[in-house]
Amino acid sequence: MTLKLLLLHGPNLNLLGTREPEVYGSLTLDDINQRLQQRAQSLGVELTMHQSNHEGTLIDFIQDAMIWAHGLIINPGGYTHTSVALRDAIAAVALPTIECHLSNIYAREPFRHTSLITPVCIGQICGLGWYSYMAALDALVNRLTAGPSLD
Amino acid sequence: MTLKLLLLHGPNLNLLGTREPEVYGSLTLDDINQRLQQRAQSLGVELTMHQSNHEGTLIDFIQDAMIWAHGLIINPGGYTHTSVALRDAIAAVALPTIECHLSNIYAREPFRHTSLITPVCIGQICGLGWYSYMAALDALVNRLTAGPSLD
Amino acid sequence: MTLKLLLLHGPNLNLLGTREPEVYGSLTLDDINQRLQQRAQSLGVELTMHQSNHEGTLIDFIQDAMIWAHGLIINPGGYTHTSVALRDAIAAVALPTIECHLSNIYAREPFRHTSLITPVCIGQICGLGWYSYMAALDALVNRLTAGPSLD
Amino acid sequence: MTLKLLLLHGPNLNLLGTREPEVYGSLTLDDINQRLQQRAQSLGVELTMHQSNHEGTLIDFIQDAMIWAHGLIINPGGYTHTSVALRDAIAAVALPTIECHLSNIYAREPFRHTSLITPVCIGQICGLGWYSYMAALDALVNRLTAGPSLD
Amino acid sequence: MTLKLLLLHGPNLNLLGTREPEVYGSLTLDDINQRLQQRAQSLGVELTMHQSNHEGTLIDFIQDAMIWAHGLIINPGGYTHTSVALRDAIAAVALPTIECHLSNIYAREPFRHTSLITPVCIGQICGLGWYSYMAALDALVNRLTAGPSLD
Amino acid sequence: MTLKLLLLHGPNLNLLGTREPEVYGSLTLDDINQRLQQRAQSLGVELTMHQSNHEGTLIDFIQDAMIWAHGLIINPGGYTHTSVALRDAIAAVALPTIECHLSNIYAREPFRHTSLITPVCIGQICGLGWYSYMAALDALVNRLTAGPSLD
Amino acid sequence: MTLKLLLLHGPNLNLLGTREPEVYGSLTLDDINQRLQQRAQSLGVELTMHQSNHEGTLIDFIQDAMIWAHGLIINPGGYTHTSVALRDAIAAVALPTIECHLSNIYAREPFRHTSLITPVCIGQICGLGWYSYMAALDALVNRLTAGPSLD
Amino acid sequence: MTLKLLLLHGPNLNLLGTREPEVYGSLTLDDINQRLQQRAQSLGVELTMHQSNHEGTLIDFIQDAMIWAHGLIINPGGYTHTSVALRDAIAAVALPTIECHLSNIYAREPFRHTSLITPVCIGQICGLGWYSYMAALDALVNRLTAGPSLD
Amino acid sequence: MTLKLLLLHGPNLNLLGTREPEVYGSLTLDDINQRLQQRAQSLGVELTMHQSNHEGTLIDFIQDAMIWAHGLIINPGGYTHTSVALRDAIAAVALPTIECHLSNIYAREPFRHTSLITPVCIGQICGLGWYSYMAALDALVNRLTAGPSLD
Amino acid sequence: MTLKLLLLHGPNLNLLGTREPEVYGSLTLDDINQRLQQRAQSLGVELTMHQSNHEGTLIDFIQDAMIWAHGLIINPGGYTHTSVALRDAIAAVALPTIECHLSNIYAREPFRHTSLITPVCIGQICGLGWYSYMAALDALVNRLTAGPSLD
Amino acid sequence: MTLKLLLLHGPNLNLLGTREPEVYGSLTLDDINQRLQQRAQSLGVELTMHQSNHEGTLIDFIQDAMIWAHGLIINPGGYTHTSVALRDAIAAVALPTIECHLSNIYAREPFRHTSLITPVCIGQICGLGWYSYMAALDALVNRLTAGPSLD
Amino acid sequence: MTLKLLLLHGPNLNLLGTREPEVYGSLTLDDINQRLQQRAQSLGVELTMHQSNHEGTLIDFIQDAMIWAHGLIINPGGYTHTSVALRDAIAAVALPTIECHLSNIYAREPFRHTSLITPVCIGQICGLGWYSYMAALDALVNRLTAGPSLD
Repeated sequence: MTLKLLLLHGPNLNLLGTREPEVYGSLTLDDINQRLQQRAQSLGVELTMHQSNHEGTLIDFIQDAMIWAHGLIINPGGYTHTSVALRDAIAAVALPTIECHLSNIYAREPFRHTSLITPVCIGQICGLGWYSYMAALDALVNRLTAGPSLD
Repeated sequence: MTLKLLLLHGPNLNLLGTREPEVYGSLTLDDINQRLQQRAQSLGVELTMHQSNHEGTLIDFIQDAMIWAHGLIINPGGYTHTSVALRDAIAAVALPTIECHLSNIYAREPFRHTSLITPVCIGQICGLGWYSYMAALDALVNRLTAGPSLD
Repeated sequence: MTLKLLLLHGPNLNLLGTREPEVYGSLTLDDINQRLQQRAQSLGVELTMHQSNHEGTLIDFIQDAMIWAHGLIINPGGYTHTSVALRDAIAAVALPTIECHLSNIYAREPFRHTSLITPVCIGQICGLGWYSYMAALDALVNRLTAGPSLD
Repeated sequence: MTLKLLLLHGPNLNLLGTREPEVYGSLTLDDINQRLQQRAQSLGVELTMHQSNHEGTLIDFIQDAMIWAHGLIINPGGYTHTSVALRDAIAAVALPTIECHLSNIYAREPFRHTSLITPVCIGQICGLGWYSYMAALDALVNRLTAGPSLD
Repeated sequence: MTLKLLLLHGPNLNLLGTREPEVYGSLTLDDINQRLQQRAQSLGVELTMHQSNHEGTLIDFIQDAMIWAHGLIINPGGYTHTSVALRDAIAAVALPTIECHLSNIYAREPFRHTSLITPVCIGQICGLGWYSYMAALDALVNRLTAGPSLD
Repeated sequence: MTLKLLLLHGPNLNLLGTREPEVYGSLTLDDINQRLQQRAQSLGVELTMHQSNHEGTLIDFIQDAMIWAHGLIINPGGYTHTSVALRDAIAAVALPTIECHLSNIYAREPFRHTSLITPVCIGQICGLGWYSYMAALDALVNRLTAGPSLD
Repeated sequence: MTLKLLLLHGPNLNLLGTREPEVYGSLTLDDINQRLQQRAQSLGVELTMHQSNHEGTLIDFIQDAMIWAHGLIINPGGYTHTSVALRDAIAAVALPTIECHLSNIYAREPFRHTSLITPVCIGQICGLGWYSYMAALDALVNRLTAGPSLD
Repeated sequence: MTLKLLLLHGPNLNLLGTREPEVYGSLTLDDINQRLQQRAQSLGVELTMHQSNHEGTLIDFIQDAMIWAHGLIINPGGYTHTSVALRDAIAAVALPTIECHLSNIYAREPFRHTSLITPVCIGQICGLGWYSYMAALDALVNRLTAGPSLD
Repeated sequence: MTLKLLLLHGPNLNLLGTREPEVYGSLTLDDINQRLQQRAQSLGVELTMHQSNHEGTLIDFIQDAMIWAHGLIINPGGYTHTSVALRDAIAAVALPTIECHLSNIYAREPFRHTSLITPVCIGQICGLGWYSYMAALDALVNRLTAGPSLD
Repeated sequence: MTLKLLLLHGPNLNLLGTREPEVYGSLTLDDINQRLQQRAQSLGVELTMHQSNHEGTLIDFIQDAMIWAHGLIINPGGYTHTSVALRDAIAAVALPTIECHLSNIYAREPFRHTSLITPVCIGQICGLGWYSYMAALDALVNRLTAGPSLD
Repeated sequence: MTLKLLLLHGPNLNLLGTREPEVYGSLTLDDINQRLQQRAQSLGVELTMHQSNHEGTLIDFIQDAMIWAHGLIINPGGYTHTSVALRDAIAAVALPTIECHLSNIYAREPFRHTSLITPVCIGQICGLGWYSYMAALDALVNRLTAGPSLD
Repeated sequence: MTLKLLLLHGPNLNLLGTREPEVYGSLTLDDINQRLQQRAQSLGVELTMHQSNHEGTLIDFIQDAMIWAHGLIINPGGYTHTSVALRDAIAAVALPTIECHLSNIYAREPFRHTSLITPVCIGQICGLGWYSYMAALDALVNRLTAGPSLD
């Protein structure tokens, strides 16, 4: 059976590569998605990707995935710190989920140090730039094929 | 030039595999180190590994690495939440550093939700079991060979 | 004159009955809505019901009700604890409103103990499962027909 | 078997109807008790009611109910926010309990926003005036006859 | 070159003039928009105006403005205090922005005293009723034509 | 009747233009006062201006204005965050007052995010450089001639 | 008409004069009561006095006074800082009340710096030893005969 | 020997009787001072009185009193909550001091609930209107002639 | 001289052994008291024991012991965390006192982590089940016969 | 089988008896150890004792005990309040552990009121001087021979 | 060129030597100033000294020093903890500044543990009695002649 | 008699001069020690110096000094903010101690603003670079030869 994964980009990530390239790099979201798609293919998994600025739309995507996906990767952007509804959606669908962030959120403003999302995920990866997504993809596939990495 | 990396295991990680296998798995620290050593070899990097229960000894290892290592991976264990001295050591040697944890520290007791270490690291990976180390190794090598993953 | 009431289900409540039946029961949202519709009919009131995962859509429904409804019952789900905008909408339309929750939010995580919504409602009912809606419906009809239950 | 319920009124509720009728209404506690007694009879349950200003006496009533009652309704008044001993009593006797309040405690002073009692109850009903008791009575009987309202 | 400005009205502002005229006045949002349009014309600038109850839609408007507008005026309503995503959008598009509020938010409930938006704006104007918008419009045009008002 | 306004500059504002011109601009307080005086003349109002480093002197000025002024504009400088006495003076004389600041105080150190003064003013304007005063002058005159800007 | 006043001594005040005379003096509660009784007689008012260690009993006394007393003096002892029920009783009977304490509670442990009682009283007198009662008696009689001391 | 006392009125108290008579009464500060002067004479003590809006001037008065006064009565107004310097002055001169307030500061805004002054005084009297001063005068004279009211 | 000790059991401890035996054991309070009585006899001390759910009654017992007892052992139950009055009673009678708890209160809910009682006791013993009482008895006798265990 | 117990003295306890005898007594750590050794012998258990100022060394001792000891008594000294690593060690080896302190830590500075260690122990004994160790030894032996003291 | 330094003594320091000699010593401020003057002469620097109880006067002195002094030593007394205006003055004139205190402010009341002044100074010296001034003088001269003591 | 002093450098100070010379200067710890040794000689005192990254080792040094040293200078580095054990060691040996820091710890991250060490020292010197040690040495010698600098 082919593994099917959903990758969600939260608010403002569609702007990547168009502003402040010295901070966020010159890669656009499309560039990143392409690299992830390639890796997914080489790993033999199906990767579906969406971006939305709408909290409700992200929740709709997550609920919808309940019936077709085996796992979820999410960069919740600014909703990381404020959305109980997003957290509840992830907890409700009970898909194995890895949260990731481009930047090191713990080295930024204090209000970014608390994530409402992490406690309902397997784990979190942050600070590695676009490679955070790559590491999350590798880790999720490893998890879904090899089980919890406890032995 | 061969990349040389230091991997530090903090307090109590030497007990892995000997107690509570249902929580921490049946892999011992030696088992994990062996898997990481194999990956390091396949990546063509030299990996040096130490474990200590002593805060001061961990600091000594980090200071010592300043003159021979290109990067650092650290699971600071219980010192994550209490050691300003460890943070200062990492900041002082200025080696690219990735922090990792076996468990999802944000899903545990509140005093584990704050890391003094993360703000002086590139990023953090947590919750993936022993695969957290693997992901950190891959990411650090990627960083040291390809630069910040911004483009 | 027939009383007209709006009942709003917030985010993730559309998943009721499809996951974790041991926690949330095996009743779907449709099942609950049907029971409420029956009670409404026996009470001789018109009951309109909507569910949405979108904060803005819930606000739109509330604003829209200003011109046709006599009262509001709302389970704001995860928005209970985070939405000033939803609170402002309820305060602005000034419809008699009762907030209700399936679970006892005060016996769950600390961030669920604070509701931004309750201070602009008549009152709150929580912890009674789907009967919370039933009690809210009875109470709102009682209020609108008998006045504040002070004498 | 006839259901037997205990209803406890906490401190100062004996003053109802004698002061500030514009706030608390002109109904006395006796008036309310009479209405509740009528409802209990129509529901076919036995309802025993007590009021006390003494924390210890309320605890005594609760402990005593352990051997004869099937459920408890309590308006703990000012002890809601300060009595660990009352909470422990409710937890110890393990009777299904519903907490209720005449006023919307979440729209009053901040020290009234925290209840030590709710976490050991099934749920809470507040803000509906004397109808809060009525709704609690209906809900408790429903619970005891139909089970947790999850399906 | 003609200056082009975007003015965004956040949630519930579409209700202006329809409820509580003694508090919010009898002017509708259309009345205010008309006055602002007149001022814009007399200042020789193009003013585009939108209102939405949806956080995501407001973010979409801001992102879209990145390619055509020279400045932004925003009354974020209830999202002022809760939306990191909105803040990130303003920071990302890097348009000169002035935040404004009809009421004096610092004289209302404590949760309205903190704005997530102000730190990424030039400044804030509050408490002047609809004139807050007028002052913001004048100030933004002054800024865009005369530079930072430091000399 | 001619409107008479008092404008008070708090502590350290007499240093404007003499230090850190790249931050505070090269305009001196005299330059700013001159511009405001011109605007006042064109608006047909009398504007009296004072600066003091002394909390008590500022209070004396405010009390004195009670018998001759129609409104007050104040930049309380460092006393914004610490002076209950200044707040009480403004509240006691009950003159329509607008608070203004050159810098965006909400983008600076946390102790500058709380103003004891704003709750007793009509509103606040901050972050617009010397134009903050200009906007406050325009707004106060508008208020005193046109009434609360609610319609 | 003769003024009738109730004076309540809270928990542990019956021990006065029997322990730690260097701290609390060698006067017993009876000695103090005698002095107050003398003053009451010279002022021509009837003074009823009670002491109790029981929170509920103090509430009973207050409720009972509603029908015969014109004013209340209370030293709530340790219940000052913990009893919402006592506060509610005072608020409910709406008798003019002055709170007093032998010691300066603001110079003692932090948990004694907050009184739940003061906000529902006319005022508070503390730190004057047994004279605190005397001052409270004088003040309450003055208030009841001369009205609020505002002119 | 004749007792000599200093009475200090803090900031804004010179406005008494001129504004908001329904709140603060129609008595001016001169009226109150006259009444206190009369009481002082009947008690056979010399009473010196000053008012100032300047924190430093109040400190100067207190330091100056060290060599001529036997006791101090102070209503520190807004400096009650913010002045460590005033507290230090009272502690340094070590005169027996009673703090008083016209209003019940514990029934007003939260920032008025903490006094920096009380811990270095004998005690505090608040909420009795101008009678607060009278009670303080009586109590201070009693203290200075009869010693600590402990027996 | 025979040592005389008072042992007080606070609220709800009379329920021991009747509910939740898997948590609190199957021993009743009578069983525990019997064991303690036996130990007291073998140690040659007189042990008086009381249980009450009433805070005031516990205070009465403590005050009464002032004239006959040499030491006090108390398990204040739920009053541990809320009763300043109980603390004041223990401090006032100044009997050597040891606080004890059946459960490890520091491993339970956060509100049980703070004891108002411990600071006025010699020490505290918790978490040892009924043996906590036994250890307290041994320790108190040791203290009263051998003095502070410092040498 | 002979019970084998480890007793660990944390930092600075080696100084006992050499400084401040009026506070800590004139007994040295050797004196205390001797008394404990005697008690251990009379109880028929083997007692091994160590003291260290090094957090890491204490952790090493605990880990080492995992393979030979049946229980642990620890006075963690200053590490009580700061060492997550020590806590993790105790939790990991899962030996029945009793924490003890010479002084009543809850009657000292606030930072000593929180123990990171207690939640992973059976219980805690404090304030009884060297007898705290004795009571801990008795209790631990009782526990290991008689089971949890619940019945 | 001769170095010119300003030394400012804050509120209540003029009382030194006149009260509580056992705490603050028998040296008067004049005695201390004389010793400092002598040291200044031996170091070849000009030292100007002022004391004031007035926050505004201290600010005036600092602003005035901008045009003639090379460095500033300040003991802000009670204004240390409350004066944003004083902090702003020091930051604005940008003179190298050392803060000093006679007493160890970190061993006194909690509100003395936070200094608003230190962050805008080079450093702070406290707890050394009048020698704190001496050390500050030496250090400031060293700094101004030898540069930042980094090498 | 020759004064003997111990100077302790805490964790990471051995790295001075080897990294970030623009921040910490190009002086190595050896360079600084040499300068201090020279000053010690010119003052006629014996100075012993140690550096360690180990908390326990620093405690061992302090305990050892109890029998040979007259005073202690310590830069506790990162342990300043986290080590109760170090604080207890300093308090236990009761040597006159001055704490010093190279940087201005109050101008850095918030967690560096609190020192557990200062309350048990004579005083603290910070922010003066290596001269902080020099000033501490001078001050400690002055203290030990001239007594507390109070007169």
